Amino acid sequence: MTRVVCPGSFDPVTLGHVDVFRRAAALFDEVLVAVGVNATKSATRWFDSDERMAMLREAVADLPNVRVVGFTGLLVDFCVEQDAAAVVKGLRSSTDYEFEQPMANMNAHLQGIDTVFLACDPQWSFVSSSLVKEVLSFGGDVSAFVTPRVLEQLRSRHAERTAS
Amino acid sequence: MTRVVCPGSFDPVTLGHVDVFRRAAALFDEVLVAVGVNATKSATRWFDSDERMAMLREAVADLPNVRVVGFTGLLVDFCVEQDAAAVVKGLRSSTDYEFEQPMANMNAHLQGIDTVFLACDPQWSFVSSSLVKEVLSFGGDVSAFVTPRVLEQLRSRHAERTAS
Amino acid sequence: MTRVVCPGSFDPVTLGHVDVFRRAAALFDEVLVAVGVNATKSATRWFDSDERMAMLREAVADLPNVRVVGFTGLLVDFCVEQDAAAVVKGLRSSTDYEFEQPMANMNAHLQGIDTVFLACDPQWSFVSSSLVKEVLSFGGDVSAFVTPRVLEQLRSRHAERTAS
Amino acid sequence: MTRVVCPGSFDPVTLGHVDVFRRAAALFDEVLVAVGVNATKSATRWFDSDERMAMLREAVADLPNVRVVGFTGLLVDFCVEQDAAAVVKGLRSSTDYEFEQPMANMNAHLQGIDTVFLACDPQWSFVSSSLVKEVLSFGGDVSAFVTPRVLEQLRSRHAERTAS
Amino acid sequence: MTRVVCPGSFDPVTLGHVDVFRRAAALFDEVLVAVGVNATKSATRWFDSDERMAMLREAVADLPNVRVVGFTGLLVDFCVEQDAAAVVKGLRSSTDYEFEQPMANMNAHLQGIDTVFLACDPQWSFVSSSLVKEVLSFGGDVSAFVTPRVLEQLRSRHAERTAS
Amino acid sequence: MTRVVCPGSFDPVTLGHVDVFRRAAALFDEVLVAVGVNATKSATRWFDSDERMAMLREAVADLPNVRVVGFTGLLVDFCVEQDAAAVVKGLRSSTDYEFEQPMANMNAHLQGIDTVFLACDPQWSFVSSSLVKEVLSFGGDVSAFVTPRVLEQLRSRHAERTAS
Repeated sequence: MTRVVCPGSFDPVTLGHVDVFRRAAALFDEVLVAVGVNATKSATRWFDSDERMAMLREAVADLPNVRVVGFTGLLVDFCVEQDAAAVVKGLRSSTDYEFEQPMANMNAHLQGIDTVFLACDPQWSFVSSSLVKEVLSFGGDVSAFVTPRVLEQLRSRHAERTAS
Repeated sequence: MTRVVCPGSFDPVTLGHVDVFRRAAALFDEVLVAVGVNATKSATRWFDSDERMAMLREAVADLPNVRVVGFTGLLVDFCVEQDAAAVVKGLRSSTDYEFEQPMANMNAHLQGIDTVFLACDPQWSFVSSSLVKEVLSFGGDVSAFVTPRVLEQLRSRHAERTAS
Repeated sequence: MTRVVCPGSFDPVTLGHVDVFRRAAALFDEVLVAVGVNATKSATRWFDSDERMAMLREAVADLPNVRVVGFTGLLVDFCVEQDAAAVVKGLRSSTDYEFEQPMANMNAHLQGIDTVFLACDPQWSFVSSSLVKEVLSFGGDVSAFVTPRVLEQLRSRHAERTAS
Repeated sequence: MTRVVCPGSFDPVTLGHVDVFRRAAALFDEVLVAVGVNATKSATRWFDSDERMAMLREAVADLPNVRVVGFTGLLVDFCVEQDAAAVVKGLRSSTDYEFEQPMANMNAHLQGIDTVFLACDPQWSFVSSSLVKEVLSFGGDVSAFVTPRVLEQLRSRHAERTAS
Repeated sequence: MTRVVCPGSFDPVTLGHVDVFRRAAALFDEVLVAVGVNATKSATRWFDSDERMAMLREAVADLPNVRVVGFTGLLVDFCVEQDAAAVVKGLRSSTDYEFEQPMANMNAHLQGIDTVFLACDPQWSFVSSSLVKEVLSFGGDVSAFVTPRVLEQLRSRHAERTAS
Repeated sequence: MTRVVCPGSFDPVTLGHVDVFRRAAALFDEVLVAVGVNATKSATRWFDSDERMAMLREAVADLPNVRVVGFTGLLVDFCVEQDAAAVVKGLRSSTDYEFEQPMANMNAHLQGIDTVFLACDPQWSFVSSSLVKEVLSFGGDVSAFVTPRVLEQLRSRHAERTAS
């Protein structure tokens, strides 16, 4: 039984993320989508960890071997605790790889946890949570990049943020 | 049961390759090391496919779920035929990733075969079959990068090539 | 009649920017230099949008088919509104391209607005508004990179910022 | 009237190339697709320049302001001779940009000919003439990447090459 | 007598930094490790400049031709003042190089100060002060990356930061 | 006394190479420009090693601490033999760095020979021996990139090659 972990902030989950989860679920026995639950709040964060996990759970509802969990502390300690063999990360470009490579090497050093990279499907190569939020903020149509439920949440959160 | 394929020319296999096989063998049920057996001979090739497979078999002898096989034709057709779920490739740098990404996308398009990338261990980041052959040709010591048996084969082949 | 848009913050305009405007003006009928006018202020911003537009207007005074305008909202919506066919961006390096590519793809997706990239002249390859401000802050000579009028503005603004 | 040149070997033209021609044709008054006609033959070349131009002409038949021409000698001299303002190149990745940037700088130096880069549509990001030929050689289905007429030519040429 | 400058924030010094100092000390007559002493404090900074210099001095105690100094203002002005011929920077990857290249060109432009790049030893390729601090914050073992004295300082500073 | 080696094929030397030699000569006591003298001839080679060394000697005639030498065998063995501390390489881009990094790591592994990288001056960033030969072959003016003597040699060699 091989379990892997897909870590991220997923603020919010995009269809690009879901594609990576789906592919990981086809390759491994169990996929844990692990949402970082930090005490400190980022200024660019729109959703708290409960909201992000709820959106993720809905987005992966049809993937029986995918579970959404929160984690604190070091990712590799969480992997050891969960008896996971590897971290799975999607790559949109070589820039993503350059950013991820040191962390993959560090994770292997710290706990012998390996990292598996999946090249994203070209249709999602330009999609990120941050660009989705930016485009939506300025009134652009991001319905191609998120689930209907996430789109709805993005819109209402944007309305709240603009109002305040 | 998840089977994956590690394709390459392996002319000859290096310890960097073996590290990728070992890690793939820890993540997946079975690993097929697949040696391209082309009719046309490359000028930079030192060993024929039988020689390359023999060196590979010795190098992975202690990895019970790794098998060395030859293949002809399209890699993804071979994967389908072998009921393999994915191709596994090691990456030494972002340049490697840039080179591999289009082939990964193409393989997904052709047969839905996914590609799993593993970042090489930093100690193998500068090791390639071609650099090993070049260094050995000029009398450099490459014993840190290949098995003793491969080193011996490299030396005798180099002697033959120089003699002719 | 083909109109294009050169977007940016231009805080302040450099001679590298002007070179891109001049080249765009040679290729297209009309060039709109579009200054993002956001409500939120960046901490690294030295000049407000009126100041930035004034400096730009002076810098492009000899380019009859270049106009400086402010815009709010989504860049591609502004392009549609102005009947512009494409966005023009200068590239200093492949890193710039990696950063711009997802936005170009997104802009094409959102409104079918294309993006035209121009490789900057090597002499401007290391020049950016932020590096110019940093160098000037520490007393370095940036007169090779901006117009005399911009240099004067940078100096007086730096004096103001240091005094406060 | 702004005329641009899309140079290449186009051995054979792919739908990724056609997408660049179509976009260039929307931005500029006239697009010359310029096929390099060299005396020396490349070993990886499948089609002679007449065959490549014939396939191109068919592929751009619905683009009234696109013309297919052969050229010999230096690309920028051809541009000057044709009164073209710029070269247009599609980019699949930052690696492509790294390769093209020195040539763009050289072309600007030699004759003041500018180069316009267009980021390819993500769906064509992994498509190249050489990969299409390689996949087809091994029996893969490349019908998504070329016109029906080009597919037919590829197949019959491959049969001829295999037979000989 | 050739003097060079290794600039940085060194918050804190890692064994990767020390490796670069040692190699620079083997190539040049004198190495000044120059710690930026800025009035403004960065939020990600853990140690003040006195603390960082004390840790550096201990880390390079066995390198007789390495001196640790603070500097304010423009790096190249400091180099001129110290009669240094060049700046020395370690590179972990091509991304580091892309980041450093414009500054190297700017430094050459401003004062004719050259920059010498050293590729880091692969074993340090994934080590940075910021990643070391992040891993330690979450309880990971970073003893392989810093001196015992720095490790102790990191631990006590982390305890203080968590307590406050 | 620190001696360094600038290796290359220099077919032929360009002003970009000379700029690197000049900068190395300012940083180190002695610079050996080392021309690879291989038995096998490359098809893209225009000049034999004697011709290349003669052009180099003329190009560096005004640099008293630069010497031009031929070498065979492994570069690092030559460095050891010459008591050289390091190899010096110019970089035009991050792609150059990606290519050089494994060789730098290999050279450090084999003989403890370090590699010093210098970022080329932006004006030479697009200049290479191969592009110079290609441009000249098609009748382009490369006088900005080589010495007058090299230009003359390029022209007469090109005439010979075309005649044969």
